Amino acid sequence: MTDLHDCRARDAADPLRPLRDLFTLPEGVVYLDGNSLGPLPRATAARVARAVEHEWGEGLIRSWNTAGWYEMPRRVGDRIAGWIGAAPGEVVATDTTSINLYKVLSAALKIAAGDRPGRRVVLSERSNFPTDLYIAQALCEERGGELRLVGAPDGIPQALQGPDVAVLMLTHVNYRTGAMHDMEALTALAHRHGVLTVWDLAHSAGAVPVDLHGAAADFAVGCGYKYLNGGPGSPAFAWVHPRHADRFWQPLAGWWGHAAPFEFTPDYRPAPGIARYLCGTQPVLSLVALDCGMASLDAARPLGGMAALRAKSLALTDLFIALVEERCTGHGLSLVTPREHARRGSQVSLSRAEGAYAIVRALIARGVIGDFRAPDILRFGFTPLYLGFEDVWNAVEQLRQVLDSREWQRPEFNRPQAVT
Amino acid sequence: MTDLHDCRARDAADPLRPLRDLFTLPEGVVYLDGNSLGPLPRATAARVARAVEHEWGEGLIRSWNTAGWYEMPRRVGDRIAGWIGAAPGEVVATDTTSINLYKVLSAALKIAAGDRPGRRVVLSERSNFPTDLYIAQALCEERGGELRLVGAPDGIPQALQGPDVAVLMLTHVNYRTGAMHDMEALTALAHRHGVLTVWDLAHSAGAVPVDLHGAAADFAVGCGYKYLNGGPGSPAFAWVHPRHADRFWQPLAGWWGHAAPFEFTPDYRPAPGIARYLCGTQPVLSLVALDCGMASLDAARPLGGMAALRAKSLALTDLFIALVEERCTGHGLSLVTPREHARRGSQVSLSRAEGAYAIVRALIARGVIGDFRAPDILRFGFTPLYLGFEDVWNAVEQLRQVLDSREWQRPEFNRPQAVT
Repeated sequence: MTDLHDCRARDAADPLRPLRDLFTLPEGVVYLDGNSLGPLPRATAARVARAVEHEWGEGLIRSWNTAGWYEMPRRVGDRIAGWIGAAPGEVVATDTTSINLYKVLSAALKIAAGDRPGRRVVLSERSNFPTDLYIAQALCEERGGELRLVGAPDGIPQALQGPDVAVLMLTHVNYRTGAMHDMEALTALAHRHGVLTVWDLAHSAGAVPVDLHGAAADFAVGCGYKYLNGGPGSPAFAWVHPRHADRFWQPLAGWWGHAAPFEFTPDYRPAPGIARYLCGTQPVLSLVALDCGMASLDAARPLGGMAALRAKSLALTDLFIALVEERCTGHGLSLVTPREHARRGSQVSLSRAEGAYAIVRALIARGVIGDFRAPDILRFGFTPLYLGFEDVWNAVEQLRQVLDSREWQRPEFNRPQAVT
Repeated sequence: MTDLHDCRARDAADPLRPLRDLFTLPEGVVYLDGNSLGPLPRATAARVARAVEHEWGEGLIRSWNTAGWYEMPRRVGDRIAGWIGAAPGEVVATDTTSINLYKVLSAALKIAAGDRPGRRVVLSERSNFPTDLYIAQALCEERGGELRLVGAPDGIPQALQGPDVAVLMLTHVNYRTGAMHDMEALTALAHRHGVLTVWDLAHSAGAVPVDLHGAAADFAVGCGYKYLNGGPGSPAFAWVHPRHADRFWQPLAGWWGHAAPFEFTPDYRPAPGIARYLCGTQPVLSLVALDCGMASLDAARPLGGMAALRAKSLALTDLFIALVEERCTGHGLSLVTPREHARRGSQVSLSRAEGAYAIVRALIARGVIGDFRAPDILRFGFTPLYLGFEDVWNAVEQLRQVLDSREWQRPEFNRPQAVT
């Protein structure tokens, strides 16, 4: 049995431990919700202040050139590329995950329609993040396509055999369960059936190893404000494999994706490569914050990069699972996230038939911040950049106390909130 | 003839003069590019710092509820509504102008197709801002529609008679010429022909009187970073007349436009009203800056609001035109912007057959910041919130010197830049 002393010893021996100092974490908080909103890197406040006061306040419009604002979607995209197995020049940081999904799914459907006429089905999972399904649904409705959902991941191989399947659209790590797909195997299988792949990396980028080129994936999108620590609502990203990049442009044909936006010509001429996935002017202050988030992640490179982060992430989630099973027995909690390392993201989800929402609220009141996902999931994200083994101990100890004391039954923890 | 002394006297007598102190303007700069990027309101830096350090850093994910982040697109939208003749609850601040145009134009085309089958033409002007044309072009291509462009505004009435016209899509104030349409008259004419209207208010909101309800307009979008002073790339806005709001939803069907986003249901159910025009998670830091921009504009309310701003804007542009004509004669400058007040936005554009780009660059080097619009336009925006009559004098004096000295012919002013 692990005890608090062991946890402290593991933190003391952890080579990634110095990275924690790159982040601002409030006193008394164990932050297990970096999969929803990453915490504030220490460098961000000063950098954003400089963008506001110096670049905007003093530089004014000139900063589009002099402060590099114009290049920022591509420059930040290049930083992201390094964490998802993409090459420089292949990623743009822009807009939202939902909107980027609309762009790449639209391009994927056009390519499929051109190469394999008659294929009009987007295949996904019923448990995919809802916004992905909504976007696909709306796009299919417009284009005469069809969104087809499998109930469980093991249904995907058979569903891929359908002769009308155009695109396999999956989220690499499931937001509710934390289960991770085998991107390489599924992409290879999809390609064998003549199906293109669109991967949502919202819960993967910066959290687990991703190798888009290694998997020969076709399209990907992802989120900037989770494991990339870009701040609330920071821009998302889009990637397109170079073999597809110049074949089609997406329907959000705004001026930033034009080959020569400042020629102000009345006809759209898409920029080469990934730049055609840009649309309108981007929120510079939020992009600057995302750039700082990427710098904090890049600080892990000399300490072992993703291999070291992944090893620690698995150690943290292994420990959390073990401690919950040792110390919270008899309280009706079930493990939802796969035990198998190869199938686990960087989170652990538990389910409980009753009170999951209120238990999460009671934990938050005690400073252990995870989140609830309807209808019955307690979700805990473990980010090795700034979390340690003692944090895991403390989180489980608070969970045990909330359950033992039944304090979650208090009315204050059962009131609904706008955002959960 | 007006002289510097007269200009100073007019500033001293200007009741709006105190508003200038709400903005940070660099020493020695005359900023005539607020129509491209509004300057920094003094209150913004501290407010953004609070959002970064306190709301994000300390509040973390909890701030979606406790700091009001979740309501921000609607709350800031309500502030914008007050300046465009819309009611609270009818506007959202979100995404980019291009993307919002895609949403409202898509909804307009669906409504037109439902009410008047066979109408599939989007009518606009060849001189409309290019991104508007690109977006419409791409949408028409997808939907089997057609973008039809008139060469000059006076061609609109005849073109509206086409039995296949579905939507009239115009920018209220032209970005190049500064010419303003009569929104009420054109909307009434469009409606008489059974045509819906989509207005782009990028160069109108906060700059000229806009009364969307008074004009009975159908849809509108606009920009946050020009006359609303929201900062570089700040979110844009969208408005839909309540008579259309619940009839259709737009294709960017992301979770933020869902009736119950945190129920995470697999089927899209659009929120009632304008909220269905939201899509993905919004850049909070940039929204916070836009909120500060709106507060700076709202400060003009007790001083006479839009009527006072408009009167001063016309006085500033009248003075600029008069001084250019008095003091820069013989230099080949032509006035592009209409002299008639009812047809003039809050900018003055001049054209010159040769050297327009270099003259603008030379002026910028002297601290008079306007901008160049291809192929031959020198564009100067006059924002009565922070500009005075002495600024106008100084701008024309520098223009005269640049022309008299021919310093614009220097190579340094003729080199291209990424962003113009």
